[in-house]
Parts: sequence; C-alpha cells; structure tokens
Amino acid sequence: MKGWEFTTTNVPLKIVEKPDPVATEGRVVIDVKAAGLCHSDVGALRDEKWLDIIEYTPIIMGHEVAGVISEVGEGVTDYQVGDRVGVCPVSKVGMGPGYGYDGGYADKVSAPAVDLVPIPDNVSFAQAAAGTDAGMTSYHAMFRRGEAKPGMKVGIIGIGGLGQIAARAAVVKGMDVYAVDLSPKARELAREIGVKEVYENVTDLAEVAPELIVDYAGFGTTTADALDVVAQGGKVVLVGMGKLESTINTDSLILKRADLLGSVGGDGDDIAEVYKLFASGDIDPVLTKITFDEIGEGLGRLERHEISGRLVAIMD
Amino acid sequence: MKGWEFTTTNVPLKIVEKPDPVATEGRVVIDVKAAGLCHSDVGALRDEKWLDIIEYTPIIMGHEVAGVISEVGEGVTDYQVGDRVGVCPVSKVGMGPGYGYDGGYADKVSAPAVDLVPIPDNVSFAQAAAGTDAGMTSYHAMFRRGEAKPGMKVGIIGIGGLGQIAARAAVVKGMDVYAVDLSPKARELAREIGVKEVYENVTDLAEVAPELIVDYAGFGTTTADALDVVAQGGKVVLVGMGKLESTINTDSLILKRADLLGSVGGDGDDIAEVYKLFASGDIDPVLTKITFDEIGEGLGRLERHEISGRLVAIMD
Repeated sequence: MKGWEFTTTNVPLKIVEKPDPVATEGRVVIDVKAAGLCHSDVGALRDEKWLDIIEYTPIIMGHEVAGVISEVGEGVTDYQVGDRVGVCPVSKVGMGPGYGYDGGYADKVSAPAVDLVPIPDNVSFAQAAAGTDAGMTSYHAMFRRGEAKPGMKVGIIGIGGLGQIAARAAVVKGMDVYAVDLSPKARELAREIGVKEVYENVTDLAEVAPELIVDYAGFGTTTADALDVVAQGGKVVLVGMGKLESTINTDSLILKRADLLGSVGGDGDDIAEVYKLFASGDIDPVLTKITFDEIGEGLGRLERHEISGRLVAIMD
Repeated sequence: MKGWEFTTTNVPLKIVEKPDPVATEGRVVIDVKAAGLCHSDVGALRDEKWLDIIEYTPIIMGHEVAGVISEVGEGVTDYQVGDRVGVCPVSKVGMGPGYGYDGGYADKVSAPAVDLVPIPDNVSFAQAAAGTDAGMTSYHAMFRRGEAKPGMKVGIIGIGGLGQIAARAAVVKGMDVYAVDLSPKARELAREIGVKEVYENVTDLAEVAPELIVDYAGFGTTTADALDVVAQGGKVVLVGMGKLESTINTDSLILKRADLLGSVGGDGDDIAEVYKLFASGDIDPVLTKITFDEIGEGLGRLERHEISGRLVAIMD
C-alpha cells in the first residue's frame, strides 16, 4: 500500500510504499475510501510539541477515516468484510489513527473494531470521513456536554467548520438557535441554516439570555461575555482554542449558579448521531474534495486558509 | 415583640417595638431562640445596592433563624405548635427572612411553612441557626454542585467559616480531603479536622490532582490554579467572592474536559443534611454567642473581623 508519511516537525509529508497491513486480533483492515484533512495535522507539522503525542515516527497521518472492511481479525464479531465504516479518532484502546497507528492518508488502515462506526447507506464516504472528527467534536459539545434539548434557547459562537454542523443540528432538533460571528459571510450562512437570529457580538445575546451557549471560537472575551449573558442556571461549553486564556467575571458564574464546561473530542456514539443527521438529509456539510495525490498540497491549502468547508481526500 | 430594624444604608440597626406577627395562611409564627449574624448584613448596612434587593424598609434583619413554633396558620399540616425548626434563608416563595419579610433579630418571626427544616433533638438552637446559611452554602457547594462521593480526592481552598464545615463533612463522609490555606492557623485547624494533607498554595495540589476542588476563597488565582491542578474530567466549584474576576487557562478547561461550576446558597435539603451531621456529633461548629441586646454591636464586631467561628445571638 501507499500512504503519506510524517517524519518530523517542519518536514512535508511524503508518499511512501509500505507492506499492506494485516488484521490482527480485535482489528479490521479497511480499504480507505475517504480521508478528511484536519488543521490538527497542520499543527503537528509545525509544532514540535506534537512529537510527544505521536506514538512513533515515521507514521502515516490522517485521523478522519471512512472506507470498506476488507479483512477481519480474530475475535471481531460485530463486523464483516464489505461493511462500510468510519473510525472514531478518539480510540478506546490507545491513540487513534494517524497519531497512534498508521492512519487514513493511505490505501489501507488497520483499526480496532471497538472504534468503528457503521455508515448508513445514504451517507457518502466523504461525509462519513468528515463526520468523524469535526462532526463528533461539534456534536459532543452541543448535545452531550451542553445537553441541548428541544425548545431550549441556544447560543452558538463561531459559525465555522464545527459551529456550522452544531447550528444546523440544533435547528433540526428543535432548539431556538442564536448565532454569533464577526464575519458577515458566516452570519449569512447561519441565516441560511435557519437560526432564529444572528449577532455580531456575544454581548448582543444579552437580550436572549440563552440557557446554553457553545463557544466554538474561544477567543477569551467570547467565553467571558458568554458567562455574562447566559441565563440563570445556564451553561457555557467551551470548545474553541482561539486564545488559551480568558478573564471571566466570577460573580456572573457564582450568582447565576452557571456551569462553564470544557469539551474536546467525543466518541463513537456522537459520530453515529452525526451520521443519522447526514442520512436524513437534514445536514449536508460543505466539503471540498481532492485526490489522494493532492493530500500534501491540501495541508498547505489548509494552512493558508484557502479552504471553505471540510477538506476531504477521495481515494480511487 | 421587639426587633432590630434596618432603615437604610449606613444607619445602624435600632431596637423597635412592633405588634406580634400572626400566622397567616401557609405560615407559622416562630418564637426565635437563636439568630445567626452574617457578613451579608454588614454588607447590607454599607452597600446601597442592597436597597434594590431588600423587599421593604424599615425591616427587621436576620436570615439565620431557629426557634419553636408558637402558632400555625391555615393549610399548614406538616408542623405543629412546639416543633423546633430552622428557616431556609433561600425561600421557595419569594425573598427569605430579613430581606423579604421581618427576620430573626427579633422575638418572633412569621415564616412560610415550606421553608422550615425540623431540628433534630440533640442539635442546639445556636447550631441550628448557624446551619441554615453558612452550613447550607458550604454543604451545597461540596455535595450538591460538587457531587463529592466517598473515596473521592477532594481539594478545599479556604478553611474559613464555610470551608471548615465542608472539610469536616467531607472527612466524615469518607473523602480524601486536601486543604489549602495561606494562614498557618487555618492549616492547623484543617489538620485537627482530620484532612489527609494541608498545603499553603493551590498549585501544591498538583501532586494530588483532586477530582473535585471547592474554592471557598475565590481570589481569582485560586480558581485558575484549581483548574490547572484538577484531575482529567474533574470539577472546580467556585463559591468564594474574594475577587470578582479570574484569568483562567482555557486549555486546562478544554483538554481536561473539566467543569467550572458557580455555587451560591442552597435549599432545605442541604440544611437537613447539615443538621444530621451536627446531630451525630461529627461536626461541632465553632460558635461565638451573644445576647439579643448585643446584636447591633455584634454586627460591628463582624465588620471589624473580631469574631472567630459563627456569631449567634441567643434569645431569652
């Protein structure tokens, strides 16, 4: 098989030939059909802190993987050859694909069966790949950490890759959604998605006093302002790491008995829920598709912010 | 009856004679036996913001009330004359005693029956009064917001009036308690209470990585440091308002999937749990006792920080 290999910080990925993986106990081999490209991989290429996180080098990158099972290892009973599956990037048995074992920027991947999520018939491999990391993280923050419920007033800060999916999912599931984004283009997108109202600043949410605010931007002031405008007894979920500190008014937190909750990643259940929303047609994420050969250059385009929607490599 | 009446900001309370209250529908009259003096009342005397909170003036102050029921109003079925009761300062039907209706710095109080908490036989009226506000607030933060469970590693910041009760309750209930206080005297008290270890700084808790940290001090850095040292998936509960802002590291919050929860007040269930701990003899709060006539001067002593433990007026 061939794949895009990471060797170390600031060295571009390069295509290598490797022996095909085999399905060891509890694992399956997946013929990769689509792999999402993620900003984390750009980070890993630029920031040497990632060398402490990555299990071994050289390693094939790619942690948003969808494909078809071509081999099943001993002890795997829930899946069989031919099944369409996505792989949860947060593994139950160690680090996930692309960081803990050879990942999705390749023809084939060997993944733990416990991390697989079946792909519904009418969800494309490209959607399925994008649903793993971006979908999971966005869904987990809104519905698991945030416990968003129908009829609830929900504020969403940042209508980018993650906030978009969350906003549409919340609209579809019957929440009253109020979107905040500095960019007029993002606010226009939020209107198309069907939110109740759009705002330029988080403080503008004061007139709504949402019960839940999810901050997908995380620019410090966004989180502090969210605590100031959230309802009595409300929740602010923080996902975005735009800035790594925030000066909050603790009297808002205390006197409102508010919750400020950190959220990162998620699990296979989140991915399954995202796949359901894709399958129903209620959410159709914006995807930019490239070929396997374009993955190296694709990461460069990501780094230069040239991509709208999620970037996905489609394998032949 | 006579009582200490508040008229407005910066005017000392004065003793007045008033007609005895009567037990209207859903209320009882309590012959007050003990009334706790609280720093909030000092605040109310000094800060004119309180004029917006207080229901009417002049009003008899005192929101930590314990006594014996002397009259029962129509529709009250759970209580009878002679019952020993405390009054929850967070009322279910409006503002509580001392702010919403004539309070405990008096011979008699008329209180809503839904706000009463029965006092166990071997809990004194003085303990019962102190158990309402200080006990409730401290217990609520640790066990309701914090969901402290036996075997859990718990950090407590600030071993003052509230932190003391929480620390002892946590020790008794089987948590591993680690106390933090800048004052050597407070750390000595924490050792007497039976905590596992005492520390001078919150950052020292890093070696423990508690699953729960309750910050009864709230000096900004205490909360930020707590988030940095709390365990993965852990909780920080903030009660203290020593400083009204805190600059937190949001990457600690996010990557740990941590919860930062504001806590204020509590309810009758918290008070009942505190009474149980008093009744068992496991907690014996430090109390300074004065007479009814000394209430006015007592608030002065509170303001000058001359009191150790909780200040309680004992009525004849």
